[in-house]
Amino acid sequence: MLKFIKRSAKKTGLAPGTLVHVGERKVEKIRIRTIEFDEQAINEREFETIDECLPLQEKHTVNWINIDGLHDVSVVEEIGNRFGLHSLVMEDILHTDQRPKMEDFEDYIFIVAKMLSFDQERNELKAEQLSLVLGRNYVVTFQERAGDVFEPVRERLRKGKGRIRGMPPDYLAYALIDAVVDHYFIVLEKIGETVESLEEELVTNPTPETLQIIHHLKRELIFLRKSVWPLRELISRLERGEASLVQEKTTVFLRDVYDHTIQVIDTVESLRDMVSGMLDVYLSSLSNRMNEVMKVLTIIATIFIPMTFIAGIYGMNFEVMPELKWPWGYPLVWCVILAIGMVMLGYFKKKKWL
Amino acid sequence: MLKFIKRSAKKTGLAPGTLVHVGERKVEKIRIRTIEFDEQAINEREFETIDECLPLQEKHTVNWINIDGLHDVSVVEEIGNRFGLHSLVMEDILHTDQRPKMEDFEDYIFIVAKMLSFDQERNELKAEQLSLVLGRNYVVTFQERAGDVFEPVRERLRKGKGRIRGMPPDYLAYALIDAVVDHYFIVLEKIGETVESLEEELVTNPTPETLQIIHHLKRELIFLRKSVWPLRELISRLERGEASLVQEKTTVFLRDVYDHTIQVIDTVESLRDMVSGMLDVYLSSLSNRMNEVMKVLTIIATIFIPMTFIAGIYGMNFEVMPELKWPWGYPLVWCVILAIGMVMLGYFKKKKWL
Amino acid sequence: MLKFIKRSAKKTGLAPGTLVHVGERKVEKIRIRTIEFDEQAINEREFETIDECLPLQEKHTVNWINIDGLHDVSVVEEIGNRFGLHSLVMEDILHTDQRPKMEDFEDYIFIVAKMLSFDQERNELKAEQLSLVLGRNYVVTFQERAGDVFEPVRERLRKGKGRIRGMPPDYLAYALIDAVVDHYFIVLEKIGETVESLEEELVTNPTPETLQIIHHLKRELIFLRKSVWPLRELISRLERGEASLVQEKTTVFLRDVYDHTIQVIDTVESLRDMVSGMLDVYLSSLSNRMNEVMKVLTIIATIFIPMTFIAGIYGMNFEVMPELKWPWGYPLVWCVILAIGMVMLGYFKKKKWL
Amino acid sequence: MLKFIKRSAKKTGLAPGTLVHVGERKVEKIRIRTIEFDEQAINEREFETIDECLPLQEKHTVNWINIDGLHDVSVVEEIGNRFGLHSLVMEDILHTDQRPKMEDFEDYIFIVAKMLSFDQERNELKAEQLSLVLGRNYVVTFQERAGDVFEPVRERLRKGKGRIRGMPPDYLAYALIDAVVDHYFIVLEKIGETVESLEEELVTNPTPETLQIIHHLKRELIFLRKSVWPLRELISRLERGEASLVQEKTTVFLRDVYDHTIQVIDTVESLRDMVSGMLDVYLSSLSNRMNEVMKVLTIIATIFIPMTFIAGIYGMNFEVMPELKWPWGYPLVWCVILAIGMVMLGYFKKKKWL
Amino acid sequence: MLKFIKRSAKKTGLAPGTLVHVGERKVEKIRIRTIEFDEQAINEREFETIDECLPLQEKHTVNWINIDGLHDVSVVEEIGNRFGLHSLVMEDILHTDQRPKMEDFEDYIFIVAKMLSFDQERNELKAEQLSLVLGRNYVVTFQERAGDVFEPVRERLRKGKGRIRGMPPDYLAYALIDAVVDHYFIVLEKIGETVESLEEELVTNPTPETLQIIHHLKRELIFLRKSVWPLRELISRLERGEASLVQEKTTVFLRDVYDHTIQVIDTVESLRDMVSGMLDVYLSSLSNRMNEVMKVLTIIATIFIPMTFIAGIYGMNFEVMPELKWPWGYPLVWCVILAIGMVMLGYFKKKKWL
Repeated sequence: MLKFIKRSAKKTGLAPGTLVHVGERKVEKIRIRTIEFDEQAINEREFETIDECLPLQEKHTVNWINIDGLHDVSVVEEIGNRFGLHSLVMEDILHTDQRPKMEDFEDYIFIVAKMLSFDQERNELKAEQLSLVLGRNYVVTFQERAGDVFEPVRERLRKGKGRIRGMPPDYLAYALIDAVVDHYFIVLEKIGETVESLEEELVTNPTPETLQIIHHLKRELIFLRKSVWPLRELISRLERGEASLVQEKTTVFLRDVYDHTIQVIDTVESLRDMVSGMLDVYLSSLSNRMNEVMKVLTIIATIFIPMTFIAGIYGMNFEVMPELKWPWGYPLVWCVILAIGMVMLGYFKKKKWL
Repeated sequence: MLKFIKRSAKKTGLAPGTLVHVGERKVEKIRIRTIEFDEQAINEREFETIDECLPLQEKHTVNWINIDGLHDVSVVEEIGNRFGLHSLVMEDILHTDQRPKMEDFEDYIFIVAKMLSFDQERNELKAEQLSLVLGRNYVVTFQERAGDVFEPVRERLRKGKGRIRGMPPDYLAYALIDAVVDHYFIVLEKIGETVESLEEELVTNPTPETLQIIHHLKRELIFLRKSVWPLRELISRLERGEASLVQEKTTVFLRDVYDHTIQVIDTVESLRDMVSGMLDVYLSSLSNRMNEVMKVLTIIATIFIPMTFIAGIYGMNFEVMPELKWPWGYPLVWCVILAIGMVMLGYFKKKKWL
Repeated sequence: MLKFIKRSAKKTGLAPGTLVHVGERKVEKIRIRTIEFDEQAINEREFETIDECLPLQEKHTVNWINIDGLHDVSVVEEIGNRFGLHSLVMEDILHTDQRPKMEDFEDYIFIVAKMLSFDQERNELKAEQLSLVLGRNYVVTFQERAGDVFEPVRERLRKGKGRIRGMPPDYLAYALIDAVVDHYFIVLEKIGETVESLEEELVTNPTPETLQIIHHLKRELIFLRKSVWPLRELISRLERGEASLVQEKTTVFLRDVYDHTIQVIDTVESLRDMVSGMLDVYLSSLSNRMNEVMKVLTIIATIFIPMTFIAGIYGMNFEVMPELKWPWGYPLVWCVILAIGMVMLGYFKKKKWL
Repeated sequence: MLKFIKRSAKKTGLAPGTLVHVGERKVEKIRIRTIEFDEQAINEREFETIDECLPLQEKHTVNWINIDGLHDVSVVEEIGNRFGLHSLVMEDILHTDQRPKMEDFEDYIFIVAKMLSFDQERNELKAEQLSLVLGRNYVVTFQERAGDVFEPVRERLRKGKGRIRGMPPDYLAYALIDAVVDHYFIVLEKIGETVESLEEELVTNPTPETLQIIHHLKRELIFLRKSVWPLRELISRLERGEASLVQEKTTVFLRDVYDHTIQVIDTVESLRDMVSGMLDVYLSSLSNRMNEVMKVLTIIATIFIPMTFIAGIYGMNFEVMPELKWPWGYPLVWCVILAIGMVMLGYFKKKKWL
Repeated sequence: MLKFIKRSAKKTGLAPGTLVHVGERKVEKIRIRTIEFDEQAINEREFETIDECLPLQEKHTVNWINIDGLHDVSVVEEIGNRFGLHSLVMEDILHTDQRPKMEDFEDYIFIVAKMLSFDQERNELKAEQLSLVLGRNYVVTFQERAGDVFEPVRERLRKGKGRIRGMPPDYLAYALIDAVVDHYFIVLEKIGETVESLEEELVTNPTPETLQIIHHLKRELIFLRKSVWPLRELISRLERGEASLVQEKTTVFLRDVYDHTIQVIDTVESLRDMVSGMLDVYLSSLSNRMNEVMKVLTIIATIFIPMTFIAGIYGMNFEVMPELKWPWGYPLVWCVILAIGMVMLGYFKKKKWL
């Protein structure tokens, strides 16, 4: 989270619309892939430079241009100019710390979302920014690195499964957002597993490190919520038909993603509740342990201190101490000592300390 | 709750509208029951396959088709096709982790709700998804397993009790939702009993296990709230007449269920407050016990440590210790020791530690 | 609160509109009283059965029918039929666990409110349901038991004090709600006294029982809030003129009750804050006591343990221990011991432990 | 706060509009002062009875009638009748536990606000109710006691400073409310000083009394917030031009007071946050002290207990104990004992307990 | 924060619109700089008195007048009169404790914002008020001291970078607000660093001072939030086109700043969550330390107390104690003592206390 602040601070002082890549460079080479399809045909190609793939053939097909890697500002600029994107949109694409948002520019819609993954080794949430531009006959997507959650969508396109091939570009945009949201469930599942194993650890062997992990997890969940919450609003606005580029028959599908987003948010809240509860359990288990330590100390001390006192008495060197002369004095003292011990043990049993 | 995340994650990557049963298989065989009625007659039948019961006889009767068991995707598909349901509706019926919701498709209304039960042995809330499709002259309900909360409704249908026989299908839908909500009160009663017995246990003999159960219960209440809260909104939308299929004379009844839902939510909140309060009581009872342990230790130690010191003094082997020669030395020492004990006890009495 | 859940659960499975009395039977015999008045005359009567008092004489008078006791379902049914009440209204009258609410049926308005009293002996809030039906020329009120908060209203009616005699039935309804809300202040005063005395107890002598009472009080305040909060909304809706039966000149009075309701809610919130604060005080006073116990133990132990060690040294039986032969050895040891004690006491004084 | 409840309870059962003074009698004699002014002239007078000062001369001047003291109901009644005030308004003027509010009666606006002062000796907030009636050519203000925050306004009127003399009565009303809100800053400053000195005390010498004061202050801040919060809404409604008596050129000034009110609320929230934080500091300082006490005990006990054990060994009376015969036995034992002490001290140093 | 209250209190009793400088005098001499520009030319000048720079040459240029230092009331008054500003606006400019706000006076828009900086040495947030008046062909900015965050904007103006030179004054106003918001990211970065280093300190070596800093930081974050939150609303209102002086082509840029503001707020919330979590960690680390102290005490005491008891037994002086005569008595006692020690150590190992 702190890294995020630093990156934002880096841009301070530049003119709005200045194209600078803000974020980690996550990939070696930019890769451009296009998929052009209609109900009959599909054409998948890969390019190294942006010039090769533009301009779009002006057919009645849907064109999906996917760019992996953002460090080359000129690529974004080129695409932006070809499609007539606002300079602020280009800036936002390059600036990978955007909140998820949707902006409607009449001719095109600009959508930002977060692709998430969870590293179970280090309990760390990783985010990658997805920028999506939906135009009349194209969808352009920008990702920070190669490898994404869209493979099932491509598969459906290639095999013509489902209705995706015969639908307009807004359906493709929906399908991509849907893939992003679907992937959240996998992230949630992994976090859920971590939470569960942590809970077990908490009961069997809580350590200060457990507390550290709980706090870390709490923070990751806050970050997750921050990524999903604005997405909910974004999809809701699309679904309500605010954007003219989204056709009515797509809205019923958007309602479906919307429901999924709410489920994700609900689950995040549940996980947060669980993690908060774990903190209480941790603290009360600390108190419990302290109690146990104190009990042991108290039992030992309260049994032996009076006994030692008795022994101390008969260690005194008074000349006149008749008991010392008694032949049964010594065994008697032992009896007294043992009686004290018994009484004490009985008392602790009554108190349920043993 | 975690199981729920896993199940959702399982669907990731499938095309929207793909019909896959997501959820536990809870029943051996699918059972289809139809009740067809109007004011004069009622006809109750049971089928093994969906083909036998369709198409509906095009009479002016109300048809209620109830399906127990969802693992056979084809049944849902068949029904969906016959009644012209959207593919996403069919998907939602099969995907048993929906949030309660209502969707209006003009020709029919799709409603999802949760039937709950509470297992007092294991303090566990069990949920079953009820999907309800309300059309112009039919109601179709999908349940995950046999056995439901609708027996009283069926009884009223059979005996013609109340107004249910002469009313349109939206009244039947209302009656079914009402039965679901009514059952929540039984669940709440059981949870209430558990909470009460837990409270008693907390006062008499709190253990770390009690804390575990409190946390478990807290989570079940969160889950319960998540099932009821969206239901409230759903019913409110129905009642406000948003859906054209719901006739005005039914809305007054929906207002009644709405009130019940709010009562359920209120009670859930009260139970949550009680359970949260129990956590405070548990923690302060831990502190109290620690206090008691410490007091015992302190009383014993502070009484005997000075006494032992006195005994230690006269155990010294100095050649010149005049007290040792006194004939009344020994009894005098005892007096001193007892005096110390008395003073200490008096002090503790003053401090109210005894 | 738990009793409340059980009672609601009892009705599960009945058809909506089924008339069953749900609640405790709080009175032996039903009592029906009517007051019929206009600016000139007032006529107060009492009946044993409902048939005697109906139908209303169709004069231009205001009729107030008050029924104490709800266990006889037929009375409610009879009245309901005469005044044309909806079956759900009759059900709600008999079902005494309603939330306060207002329903407008054009011809009449149905209002539910809670009359509260506080038993200071057992720190218990008692609630009685008031159902009020306001028609064109009548007001019918249903109470669970004899004895109510309306005596001042009756007095004003009898003596013609204030404007009440010359006003329409909606003003009477207002006057009754006003009486209910006014009584809340008495309840709040009593709870306030309990809170104050509890606060004193907390400072002087906190016990685990105090904690129990604090939690109990907290719960009663939640219950109180639940009774008043919906009332606020109810009155607000009446005041905004949503119901056609409420005349404009009455709304200014309703605004007044509305202000009172907000005052009640404010006070409830303040009391809740006070009670929550008491929990903090209780817990920190536990910590304080523990601190004090520990200090006593530490002071005694750290003073005497070193002294006892010195005594132990000269209790050793080495043959060569020159100090034992010194004639001033014994007094010297005493000096050392006292010096240790002085140093310790000085240290504790510096630490402000004494 | 509890006094407030009792006073409200006192009115229970009276007819609405009954004029009874509810509140403490804070002044001996009622004092009536009038200021009549226009741009040219100003005329200030003082009366003993209300008859002398009424009726207003029907000139185009602004009349400000200020009444100190409310115990004489007839004065309020008289004024109410002359200006045609609603009986509920008169009741509210006399009932000094109103929430701040604004009511628009077309011919006049009725405003209630709270004048506050803070007694730093007893950390107590004192409130006085200001009722203000704004008519077409007059402003009437009712206060509970002599002495108010309006002296600067009077001074401006007398000297003709600012624009106040040439403005209509709504500007005067604004100026008075502004004076009330301005005074809140003085109250906040005093509370702020108390909080600061308390914070210092908390660090240097926290006592259970400090906790009591923190809780007391917390409550006073809640009370303060309750006085300011509704004022904000009130002014906002005036500023939005809801009341026809408020002219447009005054609204820009009302916006200014509105900003001040928000500043007051912000500051109250900040102070509450500070006071809440102090509670945490107090509790953790308790824990710290306990830690320190425990450390001292542990250091002393763990150093001397093993030493005493060694001494005890050589205090045994076995006939065959070769060490006792060694000529260097005694010095050797001292060496062993000192070595144990050194090791222990080293261990504590390593643990950073010293 | 307390200083802030005091300053506000200082103005109490003055007429609204009275021009008094409220705030610290932060600069020696007032400095006036003007930048006059259009697409072709730019003209930058500096003045000592306000008369020199006014009136504006009535060209079609954009004029930016920047004033550093507010202690000379006459300067503000002069400018206010020249540009026809409302007296309350002039008052607000001089009163440097305004909340961020926007007021639209048709002819000009008045905007207040806070320029922040963070002193990492003293963990202190410093705020300076920026007042901005946007007119038809001018922008006037008032700052409390020399040195600001606008240097990049000036640079862009001078070099004609970006679109700023060809845009109307509302774009300049946007650019200035953007510079202010951009600077918040630098402040957040610094606070983030402090939080991170504090977190490390918390794990390695928590002291009561750490707690003090945590609380201090928490308060600074509250203050930061109070500065940013109203800014969000302000920009949102500008962006929605509420003010006629803001042209439509500027709104897309305002939407961009708006997004940044939300990012700032999000980050502030995250930082607050982190700081709150640190408090929990601190408290539980206190408990942990206490646990450790207790364990050491318990281990030492429970091992040596029984051993000392054994030694005490054989220090008794009974005449008949057969063990004392045994030749192997002494070694045997040592064996018993060591056995007790072993058993104890084993027990603690099992308990995982060692």
